[in-house]
Amino acid sequence: VTTHPTKTVAFVVYPGLTPLDLVGPLQLLAGLGAVDPDYDVTVVGRHRQPMPTDVPLELRPTRTFDDVPDPHILVVPGGGVGTIEALADPDLRNYISAAAPGAHIVASVCTGSLILAAAGLLDGRRATTHWGYATFLERLGATYVPDRWVEDGKFITAAGVSAGIDLALHLGARLTSIDIARQAQLAIEYDPQPPFGPIEWEGVDRTAMVPTIEHTIRSVVHDDTLASLLLGEHSI
Amino acid sequence: VTTHPTKTVAFVVYPGLTPLDLVGPLQLLAGLGAVDPDYDVTVVGRHRQPMPTDVPLELRPTRTFDDVPDPHILVVPGGGVGTIEALADPDLRNYISAAAPGAHIVASVCTGSLILAAAGLLDGRRATTHWGYATFLERLGATYVPDRWVEDGKFITAAGVSAGIDLALHLGARLTSIDIARQAQLAIEYDPQPPFGPIEWEGVDRTAMVPTIEHTIRSVVHDDTLASLLLGEHSI
Repeated sequence: VTTHPTKTVAFVVYPGLTPLDLVGPLQLLAGLGAVDPDYDVTVVGRHRQPMPTDVPLELRPTRTFDDVPDPHILVVPGGGVGTIEALADPDLRNYISAAAPGAHIVASVCTGSLILAAAGLLDGRRATTHWGYATFLERLGATYVPDRWVEDGKFITAAGVSAGIDLALHLGARLTSIDIARQAQLAIEYDPQPPFGPIEWEGVDRTAMVPTIEHTIRSVVHDDTLASLLLGEHSI
Repeated sequence: VTTHPTKTVAFVVYPGLTPLDLVGPLQLLAGLGAVDPDYDVTVVGRHRQPMPTDVPLELRPTRTFDDVPDPHILVVPGGGVGTIEALADPDLRNYISAAAPGAHIVASVCTGSLILAAAGLLDGRRATTHWGYATFLERLGATYVPDRWVEDGKFITAAGVSAGIDLALHLGARLTSIDIARQAQLAIEYDPQPPFGPIEWEGVDRTAMVPTIEHTIRSVVHDDTLASLLLGEHSI
C-alpha cells in the first residue's frame, strides 16, 4: 500500500543559525517517514540558496516556506547573533505566524523559542531556551523553566543547542513509540559520555550573558518596539 | 598582536554523509580560533557546491581540498550508504591519503574510520566506529574497540554519530584546557538527558547489520579489491 504523506515535519532554516540546533533533532527524526508513511520530514527556508550559519558551513534547505504553508509539525532552531537578527526578519516571522496556528506541534531548540515568543506564540506559557537567554524569553512574555525541555500545550521548547536531541527522542516517542525512539537512539549511538561529566549548574549565572546580548540587540534589532521589549524598557 | 593562523582544523564533507557526525564536533570546536588565534577551523570538500546528505539538507563547505592541502588536524565524518560509496571515491581518498601523513591529529566520527582504514591509515591500530560497522572496520585491518572514542597515536576515532560530540570535548581539552572545553560544553548546553536512559548494550548485536551492509557494498563499491576486502573474501 502506497500512501501519500499527509503530515509534514518542517525544520526551519534561516541565516546565521546554530547548525547543531537543527541537525541534532533532524538526524533523529529524519527516518520518521520510513516508520510511518504519513510523515514527510523536510527542511524549509525563505529560498533554496545555501545560507550561512555560525560555523564555517552553509546549509541549503530542501523546500521554501511557500512550498510548506501548513506543516503538521514545525521545528525552529536557534542560534546567537543570527537568531537575534532573525527575530525581526519579516519573512521568517510571517512564516512562523502563518504556519504555527494550524500546526499540531510547534517545537523549538535553544533560542528558537525567542522566535516563537517574538511572534506572540508563548505569551503566558511555560517554556525554555538556552540558559544564557532566559531573561529575554521572559521579557518576550513566556515563563522560563530551566528544564531540558518544556511542554505546554502544543508547544515543546528545548534548552540550549544539544538539548534538541533529547527533545527529539521525546517527540519521536510521542509520534511513534518508545521502542522506535530507542531504535533511533541506537542508530545515532546516543549514549552520551561527556568526558568531564555533566554541566555543574551551581557555578552558572543565567544572567551573565545579558549585557553582551543587550549590546547585540541594540546593534542588530532595528524594530524599535521589539528592541524595547527585548531590552526590558517597557512591559508587554 | 595579530597572528596568522598556522594550524588549520579541516572537517571533511562529501556527498551522502550523516550531518550530525560533522556538525556535533564542528559546533564544539568552531570557537577554537577565538581562544587561540593559531587555529583556523574550516570545512573542506571536493568543490564548493552544496552536497546532499542522508537527511533532507544539503551542506556547502567553505574551502576545497586544494585550498587546504596540509591541515594540522583532519576530521572525517561518517554515514551509511554515502560513506560506503565514499570509500571508493578517488578524490576523497586522494585527499585523505595526501593530507593525513602531515597532520598532527587525524580524527573520525562513526564510519569515518572506515574511510581512514580504506586509505590504509589504521592498519594494526586500535580504533572504533558505529557499533553496526565493527566487522567492516576489522576487515579493513584495524582492531575494533567498543569505546566511545579510541586514541592510538595521532588517530582518534569516535563511535557512531553522536559520539563525535564527546570526542570533540576530549580533543578540545587536549588543544586548549579542560576549563575551556567545559566552557564550550556549557555554550552548547551539553548536559545530556536521554529521556529513555542510555543505550542498553546487552541487547545489541554488533553483527546484526552485516548482511544489509554487505548488500550495499555489493551494490555501490565498484572497486573489486576494496569490495572483496569489505566482504571478507580475502584477508589483507
